[in-house]
Amino acid sequence: MGEVIYGKPVADKITETVKKDVEELKNRGIVPKLAIVRVGAKPDDLAYERGALKRCEKVGIEPQVVELPEDISQDDFIKELHKLNDDEMVHGILVFRPLPKHLDESVIKYEIAPEKDVDCFSPVNEGKLYEGDDSGFSPCTPVAVMEILKHYDVKLKGADVTVIGASNVVGKPVALLLLNEAATPTICHIDTKDTAKASRNADILVAACGVPRLVKENFVKDSAVVIDVGINLDENGKLCGDVDFDNVKEKASKITPVPKGVGSVTTSILARHVVKACKMQTEKLAEALV
Amino acid sequence: MGEVIYGKPVADKITETVKKDVEELKNRGIVPKLAIVRVGAKPDDLAYERGALKRCEKVGIEPQVVELPEDISQDDFIKELHKLNDDEMVHGILVFRPLPKHLDESVIKYEIAPEKDVDCFSPVNEGKLYEGDDSGFSPCTPVAVMEILKHYDVKLKGADVTVIGASNVVGKPVALLLLNEAATPTICHIDTKDTAKASRNADILVAACGVPRLVKENFVKDSAVVIDVGINLDENGKLCGDVDFDNVKEKASKITPVPKGVGSVTTSILARHVVKACKMQTEKLAEALV
Repeated sequence: MGEVIYGKPVADKITETVKKDVEELKNRGIVPKLAIVRVGAKPDDLAYERGALKRCEKVGIEPQVVELPEDISQDDFIKELHKLNDDEMVHGILVFRPLPKHLDESVIKYEIAPEKDVDCFSPVNEGKLYEGDDSGFSPCTPVAVMEILKHYDVKLKGADVTVIGASNVVGKPVALLLLNEAATPTICHIDTKDTAKASRNADILVAACGVPRLVKENFVKDSAVVIDVGINLDENGKLCGDVDFDNVKEKASKITPVPKGVGSVTTSILARHVVKACKMQTEKLAEALV
Repeated sequence: MGEVIYGKPVADKITETVKKDVEELKNRGIVPKLAIVRVGAKPDDLAYERGALKRCEKVGIEPQVVELPEDISQDDFIKELHKLNDDEMVHGILVFRPLPKHLDESVIKYEIAPEKDVDCFSPVNEGKLYEGDDSGFSPCTPVAVMEILKHYDVKLKGADVTVIGASNVVGKPVALLLLNEAATPTICHIDTKDTAKASRNADILVAACGVPRLVKENFVKDSAVVIDVGINLDENGKLCGDVDFDNVKEKASKITPVPKGVGSVTTSILARHVVKACKMQTEKLAEALV
């Protein structure tokens, strides 16, 4: 059976580093602060918020939850965002998406300050991700995938990788991040002719399609590494991933579980991004004061 | 033997449409204008400039060549760019890249107005390309590839595509544009384990690696469509592509030549982008005046 690779050790290591960074900043009188912008009270948002708040507490980041009414107008929403952009005490801004339909994300995404945009909402950060420019912020979940692969010593350079799912939040960015590490990515999706075949070619298989247990044994090459980004409820209401774990685990050399896999790492990346943002902003401020 | 698919009919069709659009704009008193920013006088830049000027003349776009001294300082370069950003008579700006080394592209790319950036220099347009948001400008060469495929009725949806080359100017954007059309892209590069094998899987093979005649018959699946983006000089100083045309042409169902292939289409895309920029800017101006 393949090794089950858990998210916790990865998250713990990142958390330790971030915690030290926060201590150093606090010694200089700087308190990194994350603003979480939530419209309404969707259960998914609340669940992630709880995790983010816990992580903030662990590392010493000050959180601020900005809860906005579900019927907030676009203008008012943008005003709230601008307030956070202008607030020198706020270093990172996380906006829960998708926003309600009456708020136009294609407009709003231009209104978040790129240097505070810790989860890659702004097209500027998407552009940086595309270019492989690490002065920006890639979305937290794809970065979590990369950190797991690195933590468990999975060779990326030259690896054939198949990514199932082409979303802007996971599939595409994870493919680009892997490409930046010199892997050879193939991106599959609903219109792909033969996803199982493309997957069987992969040394590393990343499932991010949101289909419960889609990935079966016939998708997996012997000794492939399988990363499951899915978080779904099956027909019995049980939490499961995009990978049929029991069916696949014998064939994989390494496999992430759901839960306790990728999802456990995401908020530690968020915390790391807040600290990165904080450092960049305080350095810029220091330069401006010289 | 496969059908040789030339760029000219594609460019002619696009040119016709653009020409009509320009006439309509001129009837309303608007003259679309493209500023070409060239530092020094590199032969490659001059060659492309000649082509662009010819295309502008054909469709009625007014060109303005801004030739800058090779030793221009970064500040002065940015000032020139800002002048063009602010000039309401200029609708599109093309900056020849790579710039000389003392000019930092990673800084300068933020200084071009995204709405005038007709060849995807700005990270905002890269972000839009990444998202599949067609309010932006993708780089002209990858768009030329897409237009050739569409003109010659190559089915994109569900097609397995291998792109050889992962540059920000061709490889990556062409893969993303193909993904937006529901193809299944694989991106190969220097570290790919077996590029020939990955290529043999492709219904459509796009070569954009800059290696003279790298792609031989063993890279090509029977009846694949082969698109050659390469423009190289071989050891005898003869112009050639990344595909060994004579070696491959029997196996391919359709194949672009070099020259007379992709390169013939690029400036027509540039012209189309200038007109698109002009329309967007005049509409915005009209709205502001209401």
